Amino acid sequence: MGDIERLVHLLAKLPGLGPRSARRAALHLIKRRESLLEPLAAALGDAAASVRTCATCGNLDTTDPCAVCRDARRDGGVICVVEDVADLWALERAGAFRGHYHVLGGVLSALDGVGPEDLNIPALVARAREDGVREVILATNATVDGQTTAHYIADRLADCGVVVSGLAHGVPVGGELDYLDDGTLSTALKDRHPVS
Amino acid sequence: MGDIERLVHLLAKLPGLGPRSARRAALHLIKRRESLLEPLAAALGDAAASVRTCATCGNLDTTDPCAVCRDARRDGGVICVVEDVADLWALERAGAFRGHYHVLGGVLSALDGVGPEDLNIPALVARAREDGVREVILATNATVDGQTTAHYIADRLADCGVVVSGLAHGVPVGGELDYLDDGTLSTALKDRHPVS
Repeated sequence: MGDIERLVHLLAKLPGLGPRSARRAALHLIKRRESLLEPLAAALGDAAASVRTCATCGNLDTTDPCAVCRDARRDGGVICVVEDVADLWALERAGAFRGHYHVLGGVLSALDGVGPEDLNIPALVARAREDGVREVILATNATVDGQTTAHYIADRLADCGVVVSGLAHGVPVGGELDYLDDGTLSTALKDRHPVS
Repeated sequence: MGDIERLVHLLAKLPGLGPRSARRAALHLIKRRESLLEPLAAALGDAAASVRTCATCGNLDTTDPCAVCRDARRDGGVICVVEDVADLWALERAGAFRGHYHVLGGVLSALDGVGPEDLNIPALVARAREDGVREVILATNATVDGQTTAHYIADRLADCGVVVSGLAHGVPVGGELDYLDDGTLSTALKDRHPVS
């Protein structure tokens, strides 16, 4: 396989790029050798050399413990449980949470053969038992597998002496009712609150 | 900027990837360090080091002249003129052409300030004058700028003693009439042919 074909072949493995867009991306890169191709090659090399998994929470960062776990201004008494590093990043972008995280690395799934022993759950139970931990927020996705996993974890944390909470469900901010599914609408109605 | 942010920033510059999909791609790469991240870094480095522009036709390849120009089994008497290397690759994938190519590197565009001197046209005229060249096929896109460029080149080649031809227009193979524009349908009707 030639250098160009190999580049196209590897780019096509990225999520969001098919064979055709991988060819476009390869051509785009080759035409911008100094401004894009070489910097991207260097950035990939740097990431390969420096990025590691945080032994505490499972986040990906260039340090272990990660920047979130090291930040003394954050509240280590609240642990937010997410399925994936991408979810942790999304919550960090929102900037609404100032506690610590715990990345499960997936969800329980009978179909895909993912059991509790395949997820980062024992470490979570151990963290929940540590001194000073007051609350565990279950922020798995609002899918069947995500909610099943949340229920399982809630059971496992029952005797750890921490408050276990979940994210609110309802109408997304900026969302239009006409485009929402029945489940979301029913939940939003059921959990309605008085308007002051 | 951290290593991960820099990687996301560069990936977001690829066509077809926005900020969100660039983050997904970066995470996908970091999680597959040995199977994808490191090979991709190496492939980009190899491409940066080896890919060059063919001085004859403008194709991108690891050799100059490129594999197409070097192939003795191909007919050097027919030159197919395309706008971009991507078009050359598309024709090669179709496998329907066994002659040589000439990449213009763009189209004439008054709006974008692209004049004849910005394209690879003088080299094309010189090639058309060479011994043994019988035909130049104008395979620029069927857009206004592409067709304007084709007309301009046809004028420039008028006294070179070669046949100048263009691609057929009509209904794409597998295309449905209902989804085609009026221009294509008019052309397909005008250029109808007897069915044996």
